[in-house]
Amino acid sequence: VSAGRKFAIVVAIAASGLAGLIASLTVAGASATESREAIDQLKAEYARPGAVPHPEDNAFTPERERLGRMLFFDPRLSGSGWISCASCHNPGLSWGDGLPRAIGHGMQQLGRRTPTVLNLAWAEALFWDGRADTLEQQALGPIEAAGEMNLPLDEMVKRLEHIPGYEPHFDRAYPGEAISPETVAKAIATFERGIVSGEAPFDRWVAGREDAMSAAAQRGFVLFNGKAGCHACHAGWRLTNDSFHDIGVAGEDVGRGALLPPGMDVGRFAFKTPTLRNVALRAPYMHDGSIATLEDVVDLYNRGGVVKRPSLSPDIKPLELTAAEQHDLVAFMKTLTSHDPEARVPALPR
Amino acid sequence: VSAGRKFAIVVAIAASGLAGLIASLTVAGASATESREAIDQLKAEYARPGAVPHPEDNAFTPERERLGRMLFFDPRLSGSGWISCASCHNPGLSWGDGLPRAIGHGMQQLGRRTPTVLNLAWAEALFWDGRADTLEQQALGPIEAAGEMNLPLDEMVKRLEHIPGYEPHFDRAYPGEAISPETVAKAIATFERGIVSGEAPFDRWVAGREDAMSAAAQRGFVLFNGKAGCHACHAGWRLTNDSFHDIGVAGEDVGRGALLPPGMDVGRFAFKTPTLRNVALRAPYMHDGSIATLEDVVDLYNRGGVVKRPSLSPDIKPLELTAAEQHDLVAFMKTLTSHDPEARVPALPR
Repeated sequence: VSAGRKFAIVVAIAASGLAGLIASLTVAGASATESREAIDQLKAEYARPGAVPHPEDNAFTPERERLGRMLFFDPRLSGSGWISCASCHNPGLSWGDGLPRAIGHGMQQLGRRTPTVLNLAWAEALFWDGRADTLEQQALGPIEAAGEMNLPLDEMVKRLEHIPGYEPHFDRAYPGEAISPETVAKAIATFERGIVSGEAPFDRWVAGREDAMSAAAQRGFVLFNGKAGCHACHAGWRLTNDSFHDIGVAGEDVGRGALLPPGMDVGRFAFKTPTLRNVALRAPYMHDGSIATLEDVVDLYNRGGVVKRPSLSPDIKPLELTAAEQHDLVAFMKTLTSHDPEARVPALPR
Repeated sequence: VSAGRKFAIVVAIAASGLAGLIASLTVAGASATESREAIDQLKAEYARPGAVPHPEDNAFTPERERLGRMLFFDPRLSGSGWISCASCHNPGLSWGDGLPRAIGHGMQQLGRRTPTVLNLAWAEALFWDGRADTLEQQALGPIEAAGEMNLPLDEMVKRLEHIPGYEPHFDRAYPGEAISPETVAKAIATFERGIVSGEAPFDRWVAGREDAMSAAAQRGFVLFNGKAGCHACHAGWRLTNDSFHDIGVAGEDVGRGALLPPGMDVGRFAFKTPTLRNVALRAPYMHDGSIATLEDVVDLYNRGGVVKRPSLSPDIKPLELTAAEQHDLVAFMKTLTSHDPEARVPALPR
């Protein structure tokens, strides 16, 4: 993807995010004080989708998912033979690693936090800076990155070809195709698309069970969509617009700015809006893990960010939330936690 | 455990191993050529046990197993927060790591191969050199070892105390007891005792299903218990006597010798007999991972080891097996592979 196209995307999405913010503030401003109908309208924006989308050129089959699961859990996809995708995207930690910043090959600490792989079937941009458009594009990056899994892709293919047990799985998943970076990426992407957060208290509330959320969390929902304006970016059932914003976190990492023409402000210090599904399970927060708790995250927004830069998103300004309102927002975010089936570690081919 | 007691154990077990070898050669020498009854007698020695044994001072409860599973998969039990027991005892690789020698904190390579945790409920000695007598004694070693998980135990306790989600699990597993190295070790040991290889083709054959093993594998079984003498040490349903032998692998690591009085040969270069259950899934082999395939392992034994040292076990001598016999032995070992339920990664407490 060219820098030019990426630039077009970030500007377009940033603009739609702003429009969404204005619309939502209007709707929710009314709903908080006036009507249950307005809340029901808001709820409709968060309805869960019916089915997981898979792309036409990599349609779902159980064989592809099974192969992808093996590859995801296989440490032989790293130079050391010791690091798998699951080493950092740990199913026990909501598919992240619980660390401020990721650790990779040689256990060197990397610059950014491990993002979750939860609910990426619907994602329009991958990595914190959105440098990949699809899971297929994303999957190979960490495998070959010297600081992450550190395995050149030609070496990866050779290794897999020398594990006899893999051959029938590739044959069944991608008949007539060779073991290649493309088939590896497709299989992993297929597995990842199946990693979907389950029904949470919030979903039961959206579906009409009034007692599924506390009064505090319900007030938090209204704030989220109104005074606090969170849903301008944390939109839809995944609670992300897949766009990029500078929200005023301190630090030198320009994020998406590195993909854009130099000298412009939009996109500098901008990072992808993360999903808030199961967010209570994924501390610490932000692209650099610099914020320890959800309470501190709300505090950051309440202050309108800690760093005022020309690139700061126009959505970011002091919210003037009371302590009680901040508490309610956190209570709402905690209703997004689902208790999902435990991930199973497959027997790896030998 | 004192070095003196360890010395007594190794001598006693080595002696019984030798006696077993002589007895088995006699029985199997007859059985191979003369009678089905002799084979049936041999089969009886490999019958699976009925239940998993748990010690009186750490009786099984589902709550203990559940807590132990969480701790086993929790990378916060390492100094880096990135390495869990399961990082090396990978359920997808038969609870080993598939590497010649283990990798630990800082990704430094250690001196010995990661042993499997399969079937350790019955083990009488833990670690390659047997320096622990019970799983409870063993469990904390890798956590605090600087080159493995690198987390001092007092720091471990503090961390667990600061994860609110762990408290109810400890309360239910060990009511009235504090979060401590002891309760952590007990819980992990309880989980590990449940890691038991399932029914393999060999077990079905032992139970009377003649077609569960090929003719080659059946010949291999007779060789295993006769001419090749493997079962002198690889005895019983787990195919290990939990004893220690120098089998003539090259290298400077004295193994159990480091625990014994200097100047004596018995025990020098001796390592614990590993289980052969699912052995085909756990290449490479030996304490140092120096042998790549089961065929090469059989070749080592056929040559009577590659290094002739005063410490060499008297059981180790050239076997004079033909190529066909070596093939049959490998065919037998491959019947020890079971297809076990996939391990589930628990949601880790936050």
